[in-house]
Amino acid sequence: MKETKQFTTVEQMETDMKKLKEIADSLNVDTFEGRAASQQPQCKFGSDGVCCTICGMGPCRITPKAPYGICGADEHAIAGRNFLRMAAAGSAAHSDHAREILHVLHETSPEGPYQIKDEAKLIRLAAEWGVKTEGRDIYEVAHEVAEIGLLEFGKPFGTLRNLNRATKERQEVWEKQGIAPRAIDREISTALHMSTIGNTTDPLELVRQAMRVGMADGWGGSMLGTDFTDIIFGTPQARGTSGNLGVLEEDQVNIIVHGHNPCFSEMIVLAADSKEMQDYAKSKGAQGINISGICCTANEVTMRHGVKIVGGFLQQEHAILTGAVEMMCVDVQCVFPSIARIKDCFHTKFVTSSPICRIPGSVYVELSGEDTETAYKKAIELVKDAIDNYQNRDQSKVWIPENKQDAVVGYSTEQIISSLDGVTNSFVASDPTGTYKPALDAIRAGVIRGAVAMVGCNNPKARMDHNHTEIMKGLLANDILIVGSGCASQAAIKSGFMDFDAKEICGEGMKRVCNLVGIPPILHMGACVDISRMMLLVTDMASEWGVNTTDLPVVGCAAEWMSEKAVAIANYVISTGLDVFLGINPPIMGSSKMLEITTEGMRDISGAGFTYNTDPHELVRLMVETIEAKRKALGI
Amino acid sequence: MKETKQFTTVEQMETDMKKLKEIADSLNVDTFEGRAASQQPQCKFGSDGVCCTICGMGPCRITPKAPYGICGADEHAIAGRNFLRMAAAGSAAHSDHAREILHVLHETSPEGPYQIKDEAKLIRLAAEWGVKTEGRDIYEVAHEVAEIGLLEFGKPFGTLRNLNRATKERQEVWEKQGIAPRAIDREISTALHMSTIGNTTDPLELVRQAMRVGMADGWGGSMLGTDFTDIIFGTPQARGTSGNLGVLEEDQVNIIVHGHNPCFSEMIVLAADSKEMQDYAKSKGAQGINISGICCTANEVTMRHGVKIVGGFLQQEHAILTGAVEMMCVDVQCVFPSIARIKDCFHTKFVTSSPICRIPGSVYVELSGEDTETAYKKAIELVKDAIDNYQNRDQSKVWIPENKQDAVVGYSTEQIISSLDGVTNSFVASDPTGTYKPALDAIRAGVIRGAVAMVGCNNPKARMDHNHTEIMKGLLANDILIVGSGCASQAAIKSGFMDFDAKEICGEGMKRVCNLVGIPPILHMGACVDISRMMLLVTDMASEWGVNTTDLPVVGCAAEWMSEKAVAIANYVISTGLDVFLGINPPIMGSSKMLEITTEGMRDISGAGFTYNTDPHELVRLMVETIEAKRKALGI
Repeated sequence: MKETKQFTTVEQMETDMKKLKEIADSLNVDTFEGRAASQQPQCKFGSDGVCCTICGMGPCRITPKAPYGICGADEHAIAGRNFLRMAAAGSAAHSDHAREILHVLHETSPEGPYQIKDEAKLIRLAAEWGVKTEGRDIYEVAHEVAEIGLLEFGKPFGTLRNLNRATKERQEVWEKQGIAPRAIDREISTALHMSTIGNTTDPLELVRQAMRVGMADGWGGSMLGTDFTDIIFGTPQARGTSGNLGVLEEDQVNIIVHGHNPCFSEMIVLAADSKEMQDYAKSKGAQGINISGICCTANEVTMRHGVKIVGGFLQQEHAILTGAVEMMCVDVQCVFPSIARIKDCFHTKFVTSSPICRIPGSVYVELSGEDTETAYKKAIELVKDAIDNYQNRDQSKVWIPENKQDAVVGYSTEQIISSLDGVTNSFVASDPTGTYKPALDAIRAGVIRGAVAMVGCNNPKARMDHNHTEIMKGLLANDILIVGSGCASQAAIKSGFMDFDAKEICGEGMKRVCNLVGIPPILHMGACVDISRMMLLVTDMASEWGVNTTDLPVVGCAAEWMSEKAVAIANYVISTGLDVFLGINPPIMGSSKMLEITTEGMRDISGAGFTYNTDPHELVRLMVETIEAKRKALGI
Repeated sequence: MKETKQFTTVEQMETDMKKLKEIADSLNVDTFEGRAASQQPQCKFGSDGVCCTICGMGPCRITPKAPYGICGADEHAIAGRNFLRMAAAGSAAHSDHAREILHVLHETSPEGPYQIKDEAKLIRLAAEWGVKTEGRDIYEVAHEVAEIGLLEFGKPFGTLRNLNRATKERQEVWEKQGIAPRAIDREISTALHMSTIGNTTDPLELVRQAMRVGMADGWGGSMLGTDFTDIIFGTPQARGTSGNLGVLEEDQVNIIVHGHNPCFSEMIVLAADSKEMQDYAKSKGAQGINISGICCTANEVTMRHGVKIVGGFLQQEHAILTGAVEMMCVDVQCVFPSIARIKDCFHTKFVTSSPICRIPGSVYVELSGEDTETAYKKAIELVKDAIDNYQNRDQSKVWIPENKQDAVVGYSTEQIISSLDGVTNSFVASDPTGTYKPALDAIRAGVIRGAVAMVGCNNPKARMDHNHTEIMKGLLANDILIVGSGCASQAAIKSGFMDFDAKEICGEGMKRVCNLVGIPPILHMGACVDISRMMLLVTDMASEWGVNTTDLPVVGCAAEWMSEKAVAIANYVISTGLDVFLGINPPIMGSSKMLEITTEGMRDISGAGFTYNTDPHELVRLMVETIEAKRKALGI
């Protein structure tokens, strides 16, 4: 009989982190722990969202003695504008990422470095958009679809195409409430315009636009990003991987890919997999090339190739501090510029690749989605460079923590359906396949009580991964299925919660479902842009059930969020009808109206809203309460 | 013989302001003076640009003891990102304004409230864009041109159409330096994306993108806005007006239009001009309807109708405090939300009209560029409402300051050429007409030493209009022609510097030119979007001369800027090759690199850069120095 699974605790991870921090200290180089400490106490005006710097008259700060900024804006306007701008910037980040993918799609060719991997998905999408496919070359179709997709960013009229994937009820709500997004970039510009000096001060209207610009992300940029990433690089399927700093290899060339957009990292993976590079690595005394990843670039390549996960946002410096990394290749978003300083203490090469993410002290090798011809060639050169760098590794400086865990990843909606089909075929062969019926049956029967989408970042305002993992344990024990993305998924992987054996920490119902369907209790659905997959999942489940998305016993949770992208995400998740629970307070607490609107007023708009609580166990209780209330309302 | 002109001094204006502030105090209502005082001391981290709130880990503030934010960003990255975001928001504001105008153009019809006023300009522009005009209905042409214009915001490929209006030299610089803007909204999204957590920290690249997103405003949004506003409402021609609070009338229905986009105010002007409303006003005991304006909406309607100017940004509250305003109709940008509080102390109705500018306490009557059919009808209803409100005026609360000045406004490039043609025809009939030759001759001969574009806002960091007017006096005395826009122009109007008689304060050369050409020494070129007119003016002058724009003895000056729009403007003016002098320090002073890049490094990119100085007399000295140095380099 198999022994009981040994999970990795946050305390164990912290022991590793402590050791790595000591190494940093001995090298006299800064890491986030020290920087976070040196930033204490943080400005309360900023934390509360009542500091305004949007014009040259300021900064203005709201206090009892100064209840208005110089222009006359009150704390509600100021916090509302700051909130809207966070959502807009988050939407811009995700959407610009998708734009890059669409440009790459536009550059795909049978001979080029980027090709069509999932033809069926492309053809399905072309049909959805009314693009003729019969008898046409698939690349011709791809290029036409890419042009249509790119126009979603800037078309002068109408709302986004993908909105019609939503339930009719949602579409009507969005239209009626004025949150159906027009062109993606337009909503971003509108958000900035509304929040510039002398414009909107009504916090409700600022929140409404935050929802619309969030929708432009979730049902626009992110959804386009996910679909076309699948089409170019393949739709994820369940596969094994492992995660935590222990995935770095003592005797291999370690290359870390980091960031969010997989176009660069896919080339690196491809190049490293080539016989030419494998042989070259061996010729240089290494046992092979070990590609591993950080942040959502890691999620992208693990979902499609099983690439190993070094860790999430807060582990990027630790990775370099192991002394065992020959090269870190980054694309966009969530890259600590301090990497440039830390790498100077080691032999590590730090490669930036995007005009969006220019960091002094890095080697810049531009890979643009609009000029892809040499992408693979550049990747080969970089991998070769990393291999050449192996001999420069100073063994006396190498310390790789042992902790790592196995995981199963790759749960696209297509994979989930396929897993559920397994149940149907095995147990209730009379049921139709290709549906969520087995999952819905489990929810209706109460075997699973509901589901939580756990997403988002790490944030030093909480112990790293502590909120994530405490909540995961709490939810699983309550028979609540978890779908994950972003750094939340990585916390699950590192802890061992994405392993099949993690059913051990589940309630009896969840355990049965894991056994029956052959899934881990937390499904890795991908990168942060892939939260759009979750929106389609709940949409299709609601449609199949014949209820509204707001009725489903499903909520979202960003337990350790920090990025503006999380603000965009939360707004579209709520707009889609799902409550969002945050474990880090957003910068609106200085405005009673913003607090009221985001926790209550939004419910009048979309039927869902925010709950804020910094205690992970309280968050579990609140989510369980919400899920059980939704079940009760459904009469199940 | 005419007596010497009496100018209005800043001290006189301050006396009026003081009295109005006393009225506010007696009513226990807040105005900007009190709010600005209560905000002292302002946060130095924010003022210096070294406070970062772009992610949920922050706020982070850079000090000697905390040299990095939690992510590792230093003061240069933080100030650079803040600067870029200001430019992006400013560009979004101007460009979104232009988008509205283009939607209105798309809705124009021979019977509708919005029609084509300048057919010749439309046909010229259609030809420039390759749109067939021969034998076509002008509205059909307009609608096709509108659609092309709207695609400038979101086209997936290529750079902006209007860039090819620039000199070949500029086009090459922009291309080579990576600051030629792609679709307008894309540059805005890119700017947000670059500055979100974990992206660009290189201040030079952040400034480069600030220049590109600024260019998307100046040669994109603003230029489109100006052209199509002219096409719909007529290209401005020289005409008389008057300005300052004294333009409000004791015995008339006072309606103030305020904001930036003239679509709403044009309807109000039209409605008020109707016999129906004029008669109705008389029937209610008023001598007539007095439309006057604030901020750039005022500039728009004064340039085309001679509508009187109440004042600039900092006089909007004072206008209501006169007790004589029946209605204030606002569209977008620079509207103090405090108007809603002040108007409660009087009978004044406060009408907002744009989804971009929603202010609690106002009456909201939506006028959308995408649904214009009822625009005129709504304007009639509002004007009627204002007339009905005349009887509610409490005469005991009325105090209208006496100060006002006459002015000549309406100097589009077309009007400037036409004025210069007058000189050619009268004095050098052999010269070609339709050129800037007379102006260039005057510059080359040294009769005029050069020109300064004086633009931008008011800002309580300086005494209202003090920087503007001191600089104007200094430049005119040095025989430097001034072109103005925005609140800078309004400062000139209120002071009397846009009157023909203002030549009295000029040096001998400028005085001669004013006499010869029949112009005031400061030419009102319009609203802040109309700074695009100035870009075309310098471009055409440089082309005609056969020199580069950077060679011209011409600079820009935003002496009292406060809006993010000013940051966008400054970036495109510099990108166009003209130095920019600021009288209010931008929030970058906490970064030595940002200071170096914006004052020096930008010169390597575009041949021009910033100069910061809060002393207006020093600014005059520095501008004269620059102009004389450029003259010397030209050998004139």
